Amino acid sequence: MTTLENRPATTAWADRPAPDSPDAWLARAREVRALLAVDAAARDRAGETPYAEVALLKDSGLVTLLGPVAEGGGGQEWPLAYRVVREIAAADGSIGQLLGYHYLWFWAARLVGTREQIAAVEADATRNRWFFGGAVNPRDSDVVIRDEGDRIVYNGGKTFSTGSKVSDVTVLEGVLEGTDTHVFAIVPSDQPGIVFHDDWDNIGQRLTESGSVTITDVAVPWEAAAGFVDKAFQPRVYNTLNVPTIQLVFVSFYLGIARGALETAAEYTRTRTRPWLHGGQERAVDEPYQLDLYGDLASKLWAVEALADQVAQEGLVIHHDAWEVTPQQRGEHEVRVAAVKARATEVALEVTSTVFEGLGARATAAELGFDRFWRNVRTHTLHDPVAYKRREVGAFLLRDELPEPTWYS
Amino acid sequence: MTTLENRPATTAWADRPAPDSPDAWLARAREVRALLAVDAAARDRAGETPYAEVALLKDSGLVTLLGPVAEGGGGQEWPLAYRVVREIAAADGSIGQLLGYHYLWFWAARLVGTREQIAAVEADATRNRWFFGGAVNPRDSDVVIRDEGDRIVYNGGKTFSTGSKVSDVTVLEGVLEGTDTHVFAIVPSDQPGIVFHDDWDNIGQRLTESGSVTITDVAVPWEAAAGFVDKAFQPRVYNTLNVPTIQLVFVSFYLGIARGALETAAEYTRTRTRPWLHGGQERAVDEPYQLDLYGDLASKLWAVEALADQVAQEGLVIHHDAWEVTPQQRGEHEVRVAAVKARATEVALEVTSTVFEGLGARATAAELGFDRFWRNVRTHTLHDPVAYKRREVGAFLLRDELPEPTWYS
Amino acid sequence: MTTLENRPATTAWADRPAPDSPDAWLARAREVRALLAVDAAARDRAGETPYAEVALLKDSGLVTLLGPVAEGGGGQEWPLAYRVVREIAAADGSIGQLLGYHYLWFWAARLVGTREQIAAVEADATRNRWFFGGAVNPRDSDVVIRDEGDRIVYNGGKTFSTGSKVSDVTVLEGVLEGTDTHVFAIVPSDQPGIVFHDDWDNIGQRLTESGSVTITDVAVPWEAAAGFVDKAFQPRVYNTLNVPTIQLVFVSFYLGIARGALETAAEYTRTRTRPWLHGGQERAVDEPYQLDLYGDLASKLWAVEALADQVAQEGLVIHHDAWEVTPQQRGEHEVRVAAVKARATEVALEVTSTVFEGLGARATAAELGFDRFWRNVRTHTLHDPVAYKRREVGAFLLRDELPEPTWYS
Amino acid sequence: MTTLENRPATTAWADRPAPDSPDAWLARAREVRALLAVDAAARDRAGETPYAEVALLKDSGLVTLLGPVAEGGGGQEWPLAYRVVREIAAADGSIGQLLGYHYLWFWAARLVGTREQIAAVEADATRNRWFFGGAVNPRDSDVVIRDEGDRIVYNGGKTFSTGSKVSDVTVLEGVLEGTDTHVFAIVPSDQPGIVFHDDWDNIGQRLTESGSVTITDVAVPWEAAAGFVDKAFQPRVYNTLNVPTIQLVFVSFYLGIARGALETAAEYTRTRTRPWLHGGQERAVDEPYQLDLYGDLASKLWAVEALADQVAQEGLVIHHDAWEVTPQQRGEHEVRVAAVKARATEVALEVTSTVFEGLGARATAAELGFDRFWRNVRTHTLHDPVAYKRREVGAFLLRDELPEPTWYS
Repeated sequence: MTTLENRPATTAWADRPAPDSPDAWLARAREVRALLAVDAAARDRAGETPYAEVALLKDSGLVTLLGPVAEGGGGQEWPLAYRVVREIAAADGSIGQLLGYHYLWFWAARLVGTREQIAAVEADATRNRWFFGGAVNPRDSDVVIRDEGDRIVYNGGKTFSTGSKVSDVTVLEGVLEGTDTHVFAIVPSDQPGIVFHDDWDNIGQRLTESGSVTITDVAVPWEAAAGFVDKAFQPRVYNTLNVPTIQLVFVSFYLGIARGALETAAEYTRTRTRPWLHGGQERAVDEPYQLDLYGDLASKLWAVEALADQVAQEGLVIHHDAWEVTPQQRGEHEVRVAAVKARATEVALEVTSTVFEGLGARATAAELGFDRFWRNVRTHTLHDPVAYKRREVGAFLLRDELPEPTWYS
Repeated sequence: MTTLENRPATTAWADRPAPDSPDAWLARAREVRALLAVDAAARDRAGETPYAEVALLKDSGLVTLLGPVAEGGGGQEWPLAYRVVREIAAADGSIGQLLGYHYLWFWAARLVGTREQIAAVEADATRNRWFFGGAVNPRDSDVVIRDEGDRIVYNGGKTFSTGSKVSDVTVLEGVLEGTDTHVFAIVPSDQPGIVFHDDWDNIGQRLTESGSVTITDVAVPWEAAAGFVDKAFQPRVYNTLNVPTIQLVFVSFYLGIARGALETAAEYTRTRTRPWLHGGQERAVDEPYQLDLYGDLASKLWAVEALADQVAQEGLVIHHDAWEVTPQQRGEHEVRVAAVKARATEVALEVTSTVFEGLGARATAAELGFDRFWRNVRTHTLHDPVAYKRREVGAFLLRDELPEPTWYS
Repeated sequence: MTTLENRPATTAWADRPAPDSPDAWLARAREVRALLAVDAAARDRAGETPYAEVALLKDSGLVTLLGPVAEGGGGQEWPLAYRVVREIAAADGSIGQLLGYHYLWFWAARLVGTREQIAAVEADATRNRWFFGGAVNPRDSDVVIRDEGDRIVYNGGKTFSTGSKVSDVTVLEGVLEGTDTHVFAIVPSDQPGIVFHDDWDNIGQRLTESGSVTITDVAVPWEAAAGFVDKAFQPRVYNTLNVPTIQLVFVSFYLGIARGALETAAEYTRTRTRPWLHGGQERAVDEPYQLDLYGDLASKLWAVEALADQVAQEGLVIHHDAWEVTPQQRGEHEVRVAAVKARATEVALEVTSTVFEGLGARATAAELGFDRFWRNVRTHTLHDPVAYKRREVGAFLLRDELPEPTWYS
Repeated sequence: MTTLENRPATTAWADRPAPDSPDAWLARAREVRALLAVDAAARDRAGETPYAEVALLKDSGLVTLLGPVAEGGGGQEWPLAYRVVREIAAADGSIGQLLGYHYLWFWAARLVGTREQIAAVEADATRNRWFFGGAVNPRDSDVVIRDEGDRIVYNGGKTFSTGSKVSDVTVLEGVLEGTDTHVFAIVPSDQPGIVFHDDWDNIGQRLTESGSVTITDVAVPWEAAAGFVDKAFQPRVYNTLNVPTIQLVFVSFYLGIARGALETAAEYTRTRTRPWLHGGQERAVDEPYQLDLYGDLASKLWAVEALADQVAQEGLVIHHDAWEVTPQQRGEHEVRVAAVKARATEVALEVTSTVFEGLGARATAAELGFDRFWRNVRTHTLHDPVAYKRREVGAFLLRDELPEPTWYS
């Protein structure tokens, strides 16, 4: 068994007040991180569905970070959410991704919903501590929607449905039969019409339950169709914050994984790595090459973390004015996000691969699972080609060109 | 002639109000940057003493950024000063360094002076818009001080005296004869007892007037001996903020130079670089390798800039509590500064060397002077070995060790 | 099943003449490589003992490459052996390592044996196509030898015994009770006194059977004690070619793995990677970033391969004169080997990690096993710290210092 | 004065026999290198026309390396010529380039001449120890040729004419009036119709005399028009070895400059660099970061040198069969050359920029001229964009595409 049940008895979360400041939320996240770290390597090997881990995210309250205070949520904003995702990913990249995607699905109502729907979803989700998954892929018409009068009915399938299996509710997306209109709705995840195929078997982020799903006659009342009033879509003036926000979530778990690798490795070097036979030092931590290695990697990581923080703050201004954001504002923000993505990718790969040189040969034991950090970063950083992120930045510098809003830029 | 006289008529600074916000100061800095950029390459080649450029720093008010508002100063803090230095260095690395060192000498009273001396120096310097230089090297006893009762008299020489030749006042340092006691004082730079040898002839930062100086019978009343009361030194509880602050100033002009290189190059690529014969594009700015190159370099630079900003903010907390700062606070800050230094060095070198690949062969014309960016960075980044900065970071990570305060850590 | 039985019917090796030139040997190695490549990913996942694969190395004759022509061997030299190891490792890093270690154990007689023993071992091994394993670790006294008159008896254990389990004979090493004298002998691997613990479970090179072994009362006649005549060791004038040769074998499978990664990836990119949605190309192989990526990685790999070839040739001169090699010759060769090791490590890691960017997200499917290349390189490159290799090169450049012969330099 | 006159009395070359083996030629090249190294920094600063240095190349016989033995030449081949260029460039990048270009112009007859012309040119040039320059740019029609019956007359100008000013003969190229036919001929450099404008003022390779030239009524008999018989061009079956050969010459001086930087720096570190104040070592050469730095840079450089040597050997096969070379052979060779170019560019830039970290701050004195190595590499590596070299390699790997023969690929 590799579930949380084996861990030291956890705090009785229910008896404790919710965090009431960013620092308190970060402290809470670090508590959860510590619990998740205990058997992260074993969990990665076992590859079981992370029910207990998601329960921990819910019990600890982390899932309500962005929810309204009136309903018991944290009332916090994205920059803190990114930091929390980083903390969780430092212990377990998969769980960090699940939490990050949860925040995205929770927040997605703001992208397409009416003001009333947004308020209702956020209240319900916070009160009930829903964990969100998603079955969304608006590039294809893989799920078709029948209009049955007062309700719509989804049928089809999605190749990827990250987190949906372990979630309470799923953000579902399809296209209205005979049209190009995509309709989003939130549905209970545990229903006969949603069948998970458990076919996510990849080299990294192994616990994200990102496999395919079949949707059969999942019905939703028209009122729940996000952004629709009387069957007509009420378009937002500008709703293209999704990509910058999504990409900053990605960056958050890349950076978290890298920090997890660096700190786990440093602890190992301190406590288990033997100094080199012919190096002349009595402790590994006194070897010049060790100091140089860790100093170099930490400096590189800190720089990208700082950029991620800075860009998150820049985004906050835009989020605050989300109904009025201009293409210029959005475009410049996306360019900055692209730069963070490029740097986070390169540095997280470098840290997770190179840090082994501080560990020594015995640290390649499969039981220790030090390769999971690199495998996790390597897997998700291929989500979309990082070369196109550098290109966005270059086009802005050389041609004053703003990225055209797509599902990836 | 390569002085400012050749430039477009400058704004009549005297008629304009002083900037009254950080943004206004940055705007002012950018104005000065634009003026300095016009003939920066020619100025570097000519290598003349930058009297006109220092006059511009004074006329524009930039020299009083850190001075008390009551005396006409900006009343601003270090994080903004670093940003201003970056802007100036983007046009001219030497002038950026001179301004950065000026801020350091201006502020140095706070390190060693009594509260009364600090107030007096800052008031005088601001009111008179003094430009500061320095002749300080506390590692050696190269300047000896005679105690002549109510005054002290300096004699000796310093190998480096950056900016002193173009300054109004010089921070002078020496050791009391027969003791280990170093005494700092501020003296007029233009006096017969101070002779500059004009022997700074290095591959970069050519206009910093960093040559050697001879000091002959320069007398200072005992009251002006910084930190001394009745000939006894009144030690600060903790006065070791100098190295982190100095190093952040260094970082500022490294980053400024790199940004200057990147933006100057981008402008050249946009307007003058021809697309490659066999590449199939009609404009250089459409070539994939150009987009990748600039996107990569900009992303790297932005990350270090963000870390520099973040560490500057961390330092601000310490500066605000400078009389009570703990060794732990100081040490952790220094480690972060060390990381910025390491990253700024590596990235500034990469940007200034690699950016040529976006320019093409004709951009190696000496007249364009594109090599000055790399030469400037390369020269000053050797001030102290960057390997020891990585080591500071590594020792903190692996051994929880704080850097011992020295003149370099 | 992931054994060779599933593969396309193999050539009837027995009916074919042995290769009679270096090119013919390389062609033979490529045939074997192609067979091994078919299910390399599945084999890595299954982790079964590679009996069939070792049989293939024997059947194909590759194991006799270095053996005397008179006994049916290839009569070839180390530079070709390195090339053959590269080919095999390109298909399967583990099998490449096994073959490389086999060559080393086969050749080890030359390091310590008498001229007569060398001739006898090489003849027997070639005639019988022995596959060699080893249980050697001369740094410790973990196996003790009793002198029982006309024979010696080994007892103890080794932490690592690469390949021994799948071998015909094992090079065994121990220390004579009450002395510092290490004695090497070749013993049948399949005997009750040698028990393998099957405890090699590491993140890479998973099929090398590198686990621990217990030795109980393994007896050897004194005549078989390598280098001993009348129970006295007949020392070689200079027998320190082992480390340079061992390290060049390591380099060979690092480079082979990297080339395997690059070529397997290129094939995948050609046939399966989809061009990026927003890139404007119809084929992945036309995307500028793909061309740049593969061009960059191939150039880097070719440079290290060329250095490996060059240093192998330099070594050949020394091997030819192995009984007379001078410390200066040996030392300069070791420095060159150290440089190859440093470059091969860095470049093989870069290639195996970065090449994913040419593949796309779907290539992270566990079934494809693209991570095995990086895991394989990462695991074995920690054998001894690469930092000390750079140091050997630096000490030679700066101090004209030759590496002191140890088991690692 | 910065000419060779100031140097230690040189060997009386005339009294010494010509080198008669590759090793002897390399020894000769090293002698010349040592002489050139004495005042290389001062020469770079002075920027005078290198008459004395070219005289040294002639006196020492290096210019005849490729010439026929019967006429007193070395009868050597390109791989050795590249090595000789490397040696000379290690002392002085400009002189290395001049010698490399000389070899190219000397050899150019083989590209376009008839068999008779080739023999005649090589005999004359060797016997008279001609130093070659060139005024060639076949992409433009900047020099026009009038056909005046039994002779042709050149008029026009070239933007670049490397080495022509210091040469005995110049390879001249122009286009026959009213046609697309380019005609090459060898003419005496010292004639009134050839006027040099001395306008090469670039940041590196400052002594290569690469400025523009005006051609006025330079007449050549039709028999001297390379490759023409009875005014008709006799085309070679395949004559596209020029680009691979040219690019390998470029690589040679890049690598030579890098090695010059590394060895000059190592000597400085050994003799002049002080250990760091707080490092704990008594000599700079004992500091761990120094050992790591030099070890890393040397390893990188050695790898590219090995690739350059290997590709030179591959080219030799093709040169030996130059009249029959197939497009496939030529194309594969060019791809390998492209890889060398890419690696040499990157590594030479890294070495010449990074090696400063082993020197310390005082080594930035302009007098020492350590920046010339980087400036030299940076200048010439922009000759054509290195990105297109990576692209050639990538296109070969991914698309089995051979580079289309142009003036750059």
